[in-house]
Amino acid sequence: MKKTFFTPGPAALYPTVHQHLIEGLTQQLFSQSHRSATYQAIHAKAVGHVKELLGVPGNFQVFFFSSATEIWERLAQNCLDRHSLHFVNGSFSRRFFDIVTALGHAPEKVEVPWGEGVDFDPKSLTHVPDLINFTLNETSTGVRLSLDEIYQFRAKYPEALVTLDMVSIAPYAAVDWSQVDAGYFSVQKCFGLPAGLGVLIAGPRAIERAAAIQASGRNVGSYHSFASLLKYAQKNQTPETPNISAVYLLGKVCEDMLSKGIEQIRAETREKADMLYDFFAQHPSYELFVKIPADRSPTVIVVNTPDDNKALLSRLAAEGLIVGNGYGPMKGKQLRIANFPAVSLEDVRRLINLLMN
Amino acid sequence: MKKTFFTPGPAALYPTVHQHLIEGLTQQLFSQSHRSATYQAIHAKAVGHVKELLGVPGNFQVFFFSSATEIWERLAQNCLDRHSLHFVNGSFSRRFFDIVTALGHAPEKVEVPWGEGVDFDPKSLTHVPDLINFTLNETSTGVRLSLDEIYQFRAKYPEALVTLDMVSIAPYAAVDWSQVDAGYFSVQKCFGLPAGLGVLIAGPRAIERAAAIQASGRNVGSYHSFASLLKYAQKNQTPETPNISAVYLLGKVCEDMLSKGIEQIRAETREKADMLYDFFAQHPSYELFVKIPADRSPTVIVVNTPDDNKALLSRLAAEGLIVGNGYGPMKGKQLRIANFPAVSLEDVRRLINLLMN
Repeated sequence: MKKTFFTPGPAALYPTVHQHLIEGLTQQLFSQSHRSATYQAIHAKAVGHVKELLGVPGNFQVFFFSSATEIWERLAQNCLDRHSLHFVNGSFSRRFFDIVTALGHAPEKVEVPWGEGVDFDPKSLTHVPDLINFTLNETSTGVRLSLDEIYQFRAKYPEALVTLDMVSIAPYAAVDWSQVDAGYFSVQKCFGLPAGLGVLIAGPRAIERAAAIQASGRNVGSYHSFASLLKYAQKNQTPETPNISAVYLLGKVCEDMLSKGIEQIRAETREKADMLYDFFAQHPSYELFVKIPADRSPTVIVVNTPDDNKALLSRLAAEGLIVGNGYGPMKGKQLRIANFPAVSLEDVRRLINLLMN
Repeated sequence: MKKTFFTPGPAALYPTVHQHLIEGLTQQLFSQSHRSATYQAIHAKAVGHVKELLGVPGNFQVFFFSSATEIWERLAQNCLDRHSLHFVNGSFSRRFFDIVTALGHAPEKVEVPWGEGVDFDPKSLTHVPDLINFTLNETSTGVRLSLDEIYQFRAKYPEALVTLDMVSIAPYAAVDWSQVDAGYFSVQKCFGLPAGLGVLIAGPRAIERAAAIQASGRNVGSYHSFASLLKYAQKNQTPETPNISAVYLLGKVCEDMLSKGIEQIRAETREKADMLYDFFAQHPSYELFVKIPADRSPTVIVVNTPDDNKALLSRLAAEGLIVGNGYGPMKGKQLRIANFPAVSLEDVRRLINLLMN
């Protein structure tokens, strides 16, 4: 039975991935040298389409990594001078904080309980941060932050770099890139690709910071230092042999999304999210985990289940619907439903129908 | 026209890759959670088959990275205490030295000209090394080292970890793992997979060294520290969302190679290599780059071309044969011919026929 995945990553593949992959195999693209003109064209197309889809200005760079997890490490090495500030409201916002700590820094966090937004008015920060990370969409809790509040907070620390974790909300989020120094995501969420590629969009202030940190003599890593990435990006290449098939698929799927139109994708996302939130709000047995409507993610919908969710998940799986479990401590107690572009209106209707009974 | 790739990475895909990839798509494996039992089975199969194919003892670990380039960085972070020693005889043996340098260490190298083996009797080492790297097969020059000489050299520095770059010669090389602490390769060479996965086989002494370095408080990276990799490997998982399709394909292709038999693969490799070396040795216009027969790689055959190779490479490409160019300073002056398992005897005959005229 063909399954329908509502899991928030790895997730349902975008409907065109299958044909693009076969086309790439048929064209023998994955045997091409990563220094060839063929690869450079694949790379340039992926970078160009990502920038167009996300409205990224020309003076921003797009760098490829193997995962968003790697991006956290590289940001900490290349962009964090002394003190980073992390708004922690779930597992993934927390993980960047943990990686910065593991690398020997002393980051600061402003933490709120799971299911809440973030405290944009922290009373006592120990340090003036030089890097501030916001997890725009907490995949573990289904909380989405307000971009406007992020921009306002930023104004308090004009020297700090602002990095935006867009892992489970790009390309839905309409980011004003003049307010942000870096944004990043991995491709196995909203882009519906097989896992194995992280994408960092880095602005001029992030690139300058990395150059200054490297010039100071600090260890910024080797092949994936920003200087190394930049040198190769200017040739539409990567320092190492990259995940060529993923870069190729990213360009192809972004092209498909551009053909459909980003506003159409956003409208469909909102329509499906509204259906799900309305259904759960009215259902007597389920409880929306995120209490404040403005905090509710359009792309990851989290609800508390009345009982242990095991029987429910099994019943859905028996019908071919694979729904995400609660994350970490919420495992067994919640459904996490990915509302990514690969999930159709029809899929959502089918899920609701099954949950209704 | 379907092309035949003789390029030493990215290289010809192993003949079964196409069908395995379609099978993986059809089974929707690439939407499965990297924490699911389905992924754990994929992971366990890849690890088990790699170990069986390469004859790796049970007490060695297999860790997945995004590239062999990443493995160099992680080895430097986790396994290098103070002084590494690098036998440099080409671009790739040199690159590990450069990465160690970029990370702030002061490595030592014993360098010989391109096309030569290595100097196993260096007269004056400044330091007693605690990590020694050998590039078993220099992809840039087509030089293969003697495993026996590596084992003999090792005996001089019993405390040093020996790491073996097997990038373009695994699984051909029959390594005695009691003599080596780590071996590594990337999958886009002899395994004939799309690029995007590096594989490290790490023995108990390498794991112990990493633990001691971490315990000393030194920065060993974050999510890809050996401790983190080990913790997840014990659950047949990875710290981050991995390149699931590549791990899946690795398991499948290793299974195919096991069915064929490693001795059969080795015999075919030797037969094809002999044909190529014999042809070039007898041809009046070509000159084998590696002078000493024992140094000649069975998997990467390098010859000097009589003139600039551009017209020749174009003529071959017009017939659908894509042959590697000389590397770095040798670009334009050489052919580098990959003799990987995906290259058939018939492919080699065709290439020789075309070069004959």
